[in-house]
Amino acid sequence: MKTISVKELTDLVVTILEKSGVGAADARLTADVLVTTDSWGVATHGTKLLRGYGRRLRAGGLNPKGVPTIIAEGPSWALIDGNIALGMVTSVFATKTAIAKAKTTGIAIANVRNSCHFGAAGFYAHLAAQEKMICIAVANDTPSVAAPGSKGPVFGSNPFAFAAPGGAHPPVMLDMSTAVVAGGKVWQSVASGKPIPEGWLVDQEGQSTTDGTLYPDKAALLPMGGFKGYGLAIMIDVLSGVLSGANIRDKVGAWVYNPDTPTHHGHAFIVIDPKVISGSFESFQSGMNELIDGVKACPTVPGNGPLAMPGEHEESRRSAALKNGIPLRDDIVDTLREAAQEAGVPFPASLS
Amino acid sequence: MKTISVKELTDLVVTILEKSGVGAADARLTADVLVTTDSWGVATHGTKLLRGYGRRLRAGGLNPKGVPTIIAEGPSWALIDGNIALGMVTSVFATKTAIAKAKTTGIAIANVRNSCHFGAAGFYAHLAAQEKMICIAVANDTPSVAAPGSKGPVFGSNPFAFAAPGGAHPPVMLDMSTAVVAGGKVWQSVASGKPIPEGWLVDQEGQSTTDGTLYPDKAALLPMGGFKGYGLAIMIDVLSGVLSGANIRDKVGAWVYNPDTPTHHGHAFIVIDPKVISGSFESFQSGMNELIDGVKACPTVPGNGPLAMPGEHEESRRSAALKNGIPLRDDIVDTLREAAQEAGVPFPASLS
Repeated sequence: MKTISVKELTDLVVTILEKSGVGAADARLTADVLVTTDSWGVATHGTKLLRGYGRRLRAGGLNPKGVPTIIAEGPSWALIDGNIALGMVTSVFATKTAIAKAKTTGIAIANVRNSCHFGAAGFYAHLAAQEKMICIAVANDTPSVAAPGSKGPVFGSNPFAFAAPGGAHPPVMLDMSTAVVAGGKVWQSVASGKPIPEGWLVDQEGQSTTDGTLYPDKAALLPMGGFKGYGLAIMIDVLSGVLSGANIRDKVGAWVYNPDTPTHHGHAFIVIDPKVISGSFESFQSGMNELIDGVKACPTVPGNGPLAMPGEHEESRRSAALKNGIPLRDDIVDTLREAAQEAGVPFPASLS
Repeated sequence: MKTISVKELTDLVVTILEKSGVGAADARLTADVLVTTDSWGVATHGTKLLRGYGRRLRAGGLNPKGVPTIIAEGPSWALIDGNIALGMVTSVFATKTAIAKAKTTGIAIANVRNSCHFGAAGFYAHLAAQEKMICIAVANDTPSVAAPGSKGPVFGSNPFAFAAPGGAHPPVMLDMSTAVVAGGKVWQSVASGKPIPEGWLVDQEGQSTTDGTLYPDKAALLPMGGFKGYGLAIMIDVLSGVLSGANIRDKVGAWVYNPDTPTHHGHAFIVIDPKVISGSFESFQSGMNELIDGVKACPTVPGNGPLAMPGEHEESRRSAALKNGIPLRDDIVDTLREAAQEAGVPFPASLS
């Protein structure tokens, strides 16, 4: 385990991205997404991903100078072409587009095609919540998750995120995979030598397995809650893929492979302005306080403190990280070192 | 088990509702919701609920002549007061309101306060899908579901439904509880003498129990997928409760108790017009065909046929029910008989 300050890690990511051809503003934005995610303690979706993104940027599967554009729009919707830019760049653009429209019309949707992996879905929902908005953010991905009864993967682990302003509390932020766990957690367990629990994976015959090294080529994740996770994954491929005109299901590229080939992921961002619908932002905030204070007052089993709201642990880890730096596991430090080496960027002493 | 035709069951429901003070059109609409749900094979949310609704209508907890009204609206949103009308009446009104707005602006949301239990969330999402729309339908409910680590219920089983037109196939329709199972399934297991599986319920100390008779007073359901189901339930209370200005969490009345007291449930219906966003309905339908045909072609474990899309089993059961009648379990027939007796309506010979 190594610890690095938010600023130093951000500068490292910016430098690696710039050396890979990304302009200064987009590099800064992408670094903010990845380092914020690390500071939340969501190591599966933070700077660990940078090595893969860097390879894609240099091999042509991502266009470092790509600029997302609006193909078509109305007062409450926008259809956006990611033009093979970094998924983070396109997703921040799409979220901000939906926020601006929702401020006028109460609700808006931004649909994205020709994008790539976008990191943590929760970042975009949280971004909207910081702008006093409610947001649902979803993305499709290449299949890695079985359906109940299938012999192989059928849908991606298609993430679903929701965030809302939290009144006097931090924003509520739910960020979940529709698989029983995110694929990154299997890799993390394999990397750290931990066994895979029963109920995470099925092999190519559709039988349960605890061998994490089979994933993703010879094993598939199970969907969360069986038919429910399978159903949510379908919903997400409809909203982010079919509706956006993005690639869907097995046509979505696996972003960690074939770095020279665009993946054509799709996303969708639904943003609601509570001020418009509740009449005033204050009345919405007062309802959020009632909700969260009520949850906090619920009795818990001995040894547990008050119930945590989704996003609360991430918020406290971020506060600690801003003060004391971000703790990074050794395997993530190794990945970052390779990302720096491959881009020809010196590696910071604090991580060496 | 008894079998009754869709028409005969519909007529029975209409008569019971009319005798309870409901006008002809609202009685017909409500009967359509409940009988369609039964014809889908979703017995937990069909005419089984009529006895309770009838008691509320006659005791004053529902206003049989209640008419939902729009309190405030914009081109893409409407805030609706249910005025204590039947939840089905208000929810069909709200869904149709959102459909009309989405046809113009691409996406719309209808938020509902002062409503009651609305039956199966999937009905409203499916209604929109039949109108060539995509829909998410959610509702809050009185707490019956524990949070991870809580000693009692914290949120309702807050349903989540999604539907979309299915191209050449029937609409895709997902209707799920954010509890590990719907509370109705516990009652159904108790009524039919089946044991409750481990993992459904926790007792008042937050410990696992298989005693279904403890539910709901002395046991709570577990959330689907632990923290994920808990997070989704929070999202649903935000969208349907806080945003709508409806009651939230433990302030929502238990609709099966205190029939003289309104419950003040909240709902939210988000409707998207794929024609607006995809450019043409045909291009969206062609994407849905690609999605569903692709799923159908996925290999399955021996003994399984092709994978089912959500809503597919419901659709085939409905086709069979329209031909051969709806099979009703004995305990549901008993409930219906009581509903008829209490309303002073003769019971059909086919169910006697």
